[in-house]
Amino acid sequence: MSLHPILIAGQWRPAQSTGSFHSENPATGEPISGEYPISAWADCDAALTAATAAAVALRTTAPEKIAHFLTRFAERMEARKAELVDLAHAESGLPKAPRLGDVEFPRTTGQLRQGAAAVLEGSWALPTIDAKLNIRSTLAAIGPVWVFGPNNFPFAFNSVAGGDFVAAIAAGNPVIAKANSSHPGVTRVLAEEAFAAVGEAGLHPATVQLIYRTGHADGERLVSDVRTGATGYTGSRHAGLKLKAAADATGKPIYLELSSVNPVVILPGALAERGVKLAEEFAGSALMGSGQFCTSPSLIVLIAGDAAEQFIQTAAARLQAAPVAPLLSSAVARSLAASVQTLTSAGAQVVTGGTPVAAPGCRFNNTLLRVSGAEFLAAPAKLQTEAFGNASLVVTVRDAAQAAEVLTHLEGNLTACVYSDTAGSDDALYAKLEPLLRERCGRLLNDKMPTGVAVSAAMNHGGPYPSTGHPGFTAVGIPAALRRFGVLQCYDNVRATRLPAALRDKNPNGKMWRLIDGAWTQRDVGA
Amino acid sequence: MSLHPILIAGQWRPAQSTGSFHSENPATGEPISGEYPISAWADCDAALTAATAAAVALRTTAPEKIAHFLTRFAERMEARKAELVDLAHAESGLPKAPRLGDVEFPRTTGQLRQGAAAVLEGSWALPTIDAKLNIRSTLAAIGPVWVFGPNNFPFAFNSVAGGDFVAAIAAGNPVIAKANSSHPGVTRVLAEEAFAAVGEAGLHPATVQLIYRTGHADGERLVSDVRTGATGYTGSRHAGLKLKAAADATGKPIYLELSSVNPVVILPGALAERGVKLAEEFAGSALMGSGQFCTSPSLIVLIAGDAAEQFIQTAAARLQAAPVAPLLSSAVARSLAASVQTLTSAGAQVVTGGTPVAAPGCRFNNTLLRVSGAEFLAAPAKLQTEAFGNASLVVTVRDAAQAAEVLTHLEGNLTACVYSDTAGSDDALYAKLEPLLRERCGRLLNDKMPTGVAVSAAMNHGGPYPSTGHPGFTAVGIPAALRRFGVLQCYDNVRATRLPAALRDKNPNGKMWRLIDGAWTQRDVGA
Repeated sequence: MSLHPILIAGQWRPAQSTGSFHSENPATGEPISGEYPISAWADCDAALTAATAAAVALRTTAPEKIAHFLTRFAERMEARKAELVDLAHAESGLPKAPRLGDVEFPRTTGQLRQGAAAVLEGSWALPTIDAKLNIRSTLAAIGPVWVFGPNNFPFAFNSVAGGDFVAAIAAGNPVIAKANSSHPGVTRVLAEEAFAAVGEAGLHPATVQLIYRTGHADGERLVSDVRTGATGYTGSRHAGLKLKAAADATGKPIYLELSSVNPVVILPGALAERGVKLAEEFAGSALMGSGQFCTSPSLIVLIAGDAAEQFIQTAAARLQAAPVAPLLSSAVARSLAASVQTLTSAGAQVVTGGTPVAAPGCRFNNTLLRVSGAEFLAAPAKLQTEAFGNASLVVTVRDAAQAAEVLTHLEGNLTACVYSDTAGSDDALYAKLEPLLRERCGRLLNDKMPTGVAVSAAMNHGGPYPSTGHPGFTAVGIPAALRRFGVLQCYDNVRATRLPAALRDKNPNGKMWRLIDGAWTQRDVGA
Repeated sequence: MSLHPILIAGQWRPAQSTGSFHSENPATGEPISGEYPISAWADCDAALTAATAAAVALRTTAPEKIAHFLTRFAERMEARKAELVDLAHAESGLPKAPRLGDVEFPRTTGQLRQGAAAVLEGSWALPTIDAKLNIRSTLAAIGPVWVFGPNNFPFAFNSVAGGDFVAAIAAGNPVIAKANSSHPGVTRVLAEEAFAAVGEAGLHPATVQLIYRTGHADGERLVSDVRTGATGYTGSRHAGLKLKAAADATGKPIYLELSSVNPVVILPGALAERGVKLAEEFAGSALMGSGQFCTSPSLIVLIAGDAAEQFIQTAAARLQAAPVAPLLSSAVARSLAASVQTLTSAGAQVVTGGTPVAAPGCRFNNTLLRVSGAEFLAAPAKLQTEAFGNASLVVTVRDAAQAAEVLTHLEGNLTACVYSDTAGSDDALYAKLEPLLRERCGRLLNDKMPTGVAVSAAMNHGGPYPSTGHPGFTAVGIPAALRRFGVLQCYDNVRATRLPAALRDKNPNGKMWRLIDGAWTQRDVGA
């Protein structure tokens, strides 16, 4: 059987494989043709050696070349857009329109272009100059970056082309992509175009490398290898924490984006004012991508009563009426069924759904579960199990005090939302509950569902452990996302001609923001 | 036997002790009166509970109050300066003048005042506003911070008053100080003044707490406790990495400043041009604080030849002629002897020193060791053993190629220096070696010894693992050092009146730098 080659050191070459896999069409359950290798350690080792050389070359590569690569990659992606969207649709079951073609694809190419702009401008690195003491510092490239992409965004978070890829490259690092096993075909085509763009831009040929899959032990070995600079991982908590332990043991930064239930608290005034509308808004958000968003609203907190019951009934009706979209893979379907089982065994009752759909493909009925505040407080850990997919849990609390108690039991989350009324009747309760949510989430929203994650400089797609591995960084948003892949480098009394361009007296491009003697400025030192 | 009380929850109260200890005068070897408790877990637990309440209170405390605390603490320290300097001298053996009284003390109070200014100004948190999308983010307080201070700076890095203390408090967090066992008396007096200043400023009484010592297992438990926000640790690699493993396992950020040999490369032109002067400069730097600086130059790389021999002889003569100052403690003396033993057993030859001084107190003869490049390459790990104290190792390499090979074997270091001549004859070799050092250190110096660590916004007192636990952060320098103790918090569509002051349209103090729609500015949004 012929296996697809991997991309190592500027060559598409056969993997040293220990096995193989293929993707499936989750909408039909049919296998998709094309067999991909599971790499042995020799492939990881070869990739690391090549990436080390690429990292050295990139240190003296002009920002213009890196920016040119990112832009050309975006353009080349666009030239194969129809093919990529077809492939992503087949491998993920996500709709071509609007999702893949009209939203995720342009988001991804837009992100590549934002990365290009960030490279040219250079402020992401927080260049800082103490002119009097002649001490100067900046973030600089960290070295080879492994990117483990998730299953749920075949473009926007792909290990080639996605957010971590852009951030790592824009920060001056080579990327070794570890494809997600559910969409190897999309990843292969993206890598073809990325590699062609590497050549056009004249970058070191090992700037982008691709391995499809490794064994678990090799995964732990590669994130902790001495040649590795850092790792970006988006995926399950279980696998992510194993990688974290391995990387931590050798002091290798690893940035994880793990599970999150994204609590949504709807205060009584808002429920009274626009409960039906909010139930519809919730149902729409909960079904986006079949609920397979990192920021899907999976835990709704309502104060018990008629309005809460009406919310639950309206939401359930919406979920029942909506088509059951395929999940990303049979593994997701199995995991979702297991999570729902965990939730129900911990006391959650099924309002609607709760069962798999036999065929075709990988589907689970749109699901709403409910539990009382007292029941939640009896098993808060189990009832925060992430049910990745189209299932959410409503917690009906007795009163404001119990709402507060429930919130204090929440783990770290990527997001938290509060809906309140427009007249101000919820404001006192908001003030009471907000601090509890604030310290437990990365992004706090008002009056808006969390599923939209804008690529904004002010975005935080991150949060307290265990939603991520470090609460100080974001995986989305340029320039901040780049800083995960930088190391702080200081130059003390270093002669002027030996300084990197960003730290010389003259602003290298006239637009880079630098902190000079306490003031942010685009001017030259002394000007 | 009466034990000194600990400071918990706003009270000086008896410890739940499992044992006790006292400090010694390392210059004489005599015990210093005053017995200090080793706390049981109950003390750590009580401190964490109180700190949790303080962290909540600090979130809504005006920056002016926190700044007032830092300023008043500095003033109160100054009022007891003579007593503090006497105590620090007795407990550390470091000279009162110029070191303790004229350099370290004012550095410490200066740092407190810089911290106060950073709190008032607020830019440390990198407030970022996307006005169009109404997404806003900022770093915010991380929660209770444990500070483990080192033995070598009784003021400037003290767990009360030192760099990590200032950074954690200025970022809005309560500190639980774990005193260094070699100077509990200084730490006690500093805590008295800090606590008095807490009262004067009207901060939550548990904003500053003090425990003198814990068992190792409790140390690992406290850094990983769910209530802990983060930990700042400066000290030995062995203990630091144990704490890191514990903190990593529960996703708690821990910022470590560990060992470093601080390579200094003197290129042939510089050696020819000013070798004797450089040998004197080296000897002076190596003996600063008896070599007990984190940035002490402990590994000197020279190209073998007459000039190198002259450098070695001159440096050795200087070290022989200099008085043998006491080490910080008998533990340091024992550890230094063991490290020198490791180095010699790995092939290093003693040029001068190499033996302990019997009495009085804790002393080790000023020591210079040497090894050839080939010998170094035969045992690079052992020959990078940090000999914390007045001992350094010269590596004489055969040629430029061997110099490069030696540098590629270096671990991560806080600093690295290159001396080159003024005529330019070293420039080609500098260009060849610089990248090898650059990726292995946090701060790269030219023509200057590394022992001065200026409190500058552009300083990096950090570096690649294992010199620290994360290469993106600095332990010295304001505002950057504060960012270790912040979490990224985003506000998405949050109503204007509910935003923190730093993220409202109006600049809260007219001088805070904020990144608004891609430009750093002190203006209001829309202005």
